[in-house]
Amino acid sequence: MKNVKYGKCVKCGKTYAAAPDLTTCECGGILDIVYDYDYIKTVLTKEKLAKRQNNSMWRYRELLPVEEDTPDTPLRVGWSPLYETDRLARELGIAKLYVKDDGINPTASLKDRASAMAVAKAREAGAKVIACSSTGNAASSLAGNAAAAGLKTYIFVPSRAPKGKVAQLMTFGATVISVQGSYEETFELSKQAIDKWGWYNRNAAINPYLSEGKKTVALEIMEQLNWKAPDYVAISVGDGCTIAGLWKGLKDLYAIGFIDKLPRLISAQAAGCCPLNRAIETGEPWHPMEENTLADSIAVGVPRNADKALMAIRESNGLTVNVTDEEIMAAQKLLGRTCGVFGEPAGVTGAAGLKKLCEEGKIEKDATVVSVVTGNGLKDVANAIKACGEPISIPSDMNLLLKAFAEHGIVIE
Amino acid sequence: MKNVKYGKCVKCGKTYAAAPDLTTCECGGILDIVYDYDYIKTVLTKEKLAKRQNNSMWRYRELLPVEEDTPDTPLRVGWSPLYETDRLARELGIAKLYVKDDGINPTASLKDRASAMAVAKAREAGAKVIACSSTGNAASSLAGNAAAAGLKTYIFVPSRAPKGKVAQLMTFGATVISVQGSYEETFELSKQAIDKWGWYNRNAAINPYLSEGKKTVALEIMEQLNWKAPDYVAISVGDGCTIAGLWKGLKDLYAIGFIDKLPRLISAQAAGCCPLNRAIETGEPWHPMEENTLADSIAVGVPRNADKALMAIRESNGLTVNVTDEEIMAAQKLLGRTCGVFGEPAGVTGAAGLKKLCEEGKIEKDATVVSVVTGNGLKDVANAIKACGEPISIPSDMNLLLKAFAEHGIVIE
Repeated sequence: MKNVKYGKCVKCGKTYAAAPDLTTCECGGILDIVYDYDYIKTVLTKEKLAKRQNNSMWRYRELLPVEEDTPDTPLRVGWSPLYETDRLARELGIAKLYVKDDGINPTASLKDRASAMAVAKAREAGAKVIACSSTGNAASSLAGNAAAAGLKTYIFVPSRAPKGKVAQLMTFGATVISVQGSYEETFELSKQAIDKWGWYNRNAAINPYLSEGKKTVALEIMEQLNWKAPDYVAISVGDGCTIAGLWKGLKDLYAIGFIDKLPRLISAQAAGCCPLNRAIETGEPWHPMEENTLADSIAVGVPRNADKALMAIRESNGLTVNVTDEEIMAAQKLLGRTCGVFGEPAGVTGAAGLKKLCEEGKIEKDATVVSVVTGNGLKDVANAIKACGEPISIPSDMNLLLKAFAEHGIVIE
Repeated sequence: MKNVKYGKCVKCGKTYAAAPDLTTCECGGILDIVYDYDYIKTVLTKEKLAKRQNNSMWRYRELLPVEEDTPDTPLRVGWSPLYETDRLARELGIAKLYVKDDGINPTASLKDRASAMAVAKAREAGAKVIACSSTGNAASSLAGNAAAAGLKTYIFVPSRAPKGKVAQLMTFGATVISVQGSYEETFELSKQAIDKWGWYNRNAAINPYLSEGKKTVALEIMEQLNWKAPDYVAISVGDGCTIAGLWKGLKDLYAIGFIDKLPRLISAQAAGCCPLNRAIETGEPWHPMEENTLADSIAVGVPRNADKALMAIRESNGLTVNVTDEEIMAAQKLLGRTCGVFGEPAGVTGAAGLKKLCEEGKIEKDATVVSVVTGNGLKDVANAIKACGEPISIPSDMNLLLKAFAEHGIVIE
């Protein structure tokens, strides 16, 4: 890889050759992939990108840690739509708002970006099997992307994993091991099995390439905005990999001169589980928290990528905001009603946080903001049902319809 | 619209000026939109299309019944991926197989194509409100696409409608009227309300523009295949609108010389509800059937677009095939395992039918086939759970994992 220098530990600074099966530093720190931006500047221009017909995350190959001859992964991941949403911007009282809908990815979440990268690197490593432990979108995206590439997957889930997600995994042909125990115990068994059989490891944060897949969401946002950086990007935060990837993509573009300023990040967590935001707000190291939120994908009490995430929020001079489950579900309806975008609870937490900051007067009225929706609402229908109330219920009779409209205060124009 | 001549009744041949609020013929027949292909040939070339950066159904504007100044609808509908699936082709014993995944549309089904068209025409008609009756994907796609465009929706569903779909509708801000009665009674109330308040009508088959939206799936398939028509296109059939739209798109391309042969259609219905296929197979007029299938989106005993659908199957010298619910759910797993595509039961019925025809030796071994997946499996998680069985369940212990693998006959390579 001419564009990659090495992997570098974010804790101790030690560097490692960028082998496809790279994991963590011997000190236990997370690795960051370091690029040769001078080289990249010689091979990538905005004009070149504009002409490219590849409408997937692989359009940004020069900024990705893959060999030149590594094939694109089969499922079409990325290049999700960025919607300009005038009505929602007006409701929030800001100048411009864009919503990036990553729920339209092949397995319906942003995690497809990381899993596609895992599949590409597993192929480079000559691996035939990929494994991970996860309860949610990471697992289903890995199972789907690997199935399309003809790779086997072993996926470890805690027994509390929602049945729907298990069904998705099994439909994709994954071997699913439901562990009777906590997530920590699940992770431990997956680690032992990965060590024993030498499977390719897609565990979050452990594999430094996954963030590099996720960063493509930032590359797309900027290209879709014609390289005019917004003032803020709002995103939900769980284990920290996604916001770290987002920031990495922005910094890449700044380093090669494609954008001339860096947006401030808005880190939105659930009030019932916000260890990273709490660390920023108190200035203290992060401490584990309970996982008291219905937004399951960001219910992470022990974030695995805390170092990179905290660094990203601080470097960007970012804002933190913690929202209640009620605020999250209100944001789900708000995005649905004004944008036609149906996000899962964790997926709309960034928007919920943005709304709260706007109400608190913390966002300038002339600001341009991007809000990333990280997963599809169809992933968690049960909570949407609870939040959205009951429809009007009547027999088939016009008089009863008129009466019901009157009772509900519905005036037909 | 310079490219459109008129709407023409498929029953009596009477023609109507192509007003944006066109519905059915006075004889009760369904209208077909007739184009001026000579004109279209002067404004559309393959080269022009190839350069177009619009990756939505609106890239085919010259072949669509909208005014030149009608804006694209806000949600990004269409340009779904077409996957070449070597492994599945080998399993089925055919030369080439492509899977078109329309489940990645904004509200996760092919119906977004029709609803986007409804929104575009409603805007032309100056309407502020769109209404329809439906239990499923038509409703949620209308609600989502209309919400994004700032239009109100009134949606009538029978009280048996799945709660998840109602939740989707209400999240999009639709006014949902749950009718305590059959689908016929629901339709009747929607009709009275539409007549009374003059809402724009998105009821299937009634509005002749909807098929024109759906036909974009055919336009995309052919462009993605570089205008080399396959031998067959397999698709699931319910009320007949989708297969009719598919055929219309193919005929359009043939008429303007973009393709030099027309594929044969494979009309796949559920064995428990196959009135259209039965009509083809017996050579008799179609008769209503009960709706005995779990594939809810194609459980249509009284198809509303029978005329156009039967004509499409016959004109294409098409094949019919009826599959059991077991065959449908097996196809869901087959597509998941070999392609990483998770379709809803109705969405994979075309693939189930193709598999059956291959097993019966009715598809030539050197054939090239396209199978359209019409909706996302996340729309109906309950049936996927039933079909895919239970994962391995053990405590966190390596010895137990080894034992479980042995018991399940899993050999680690």
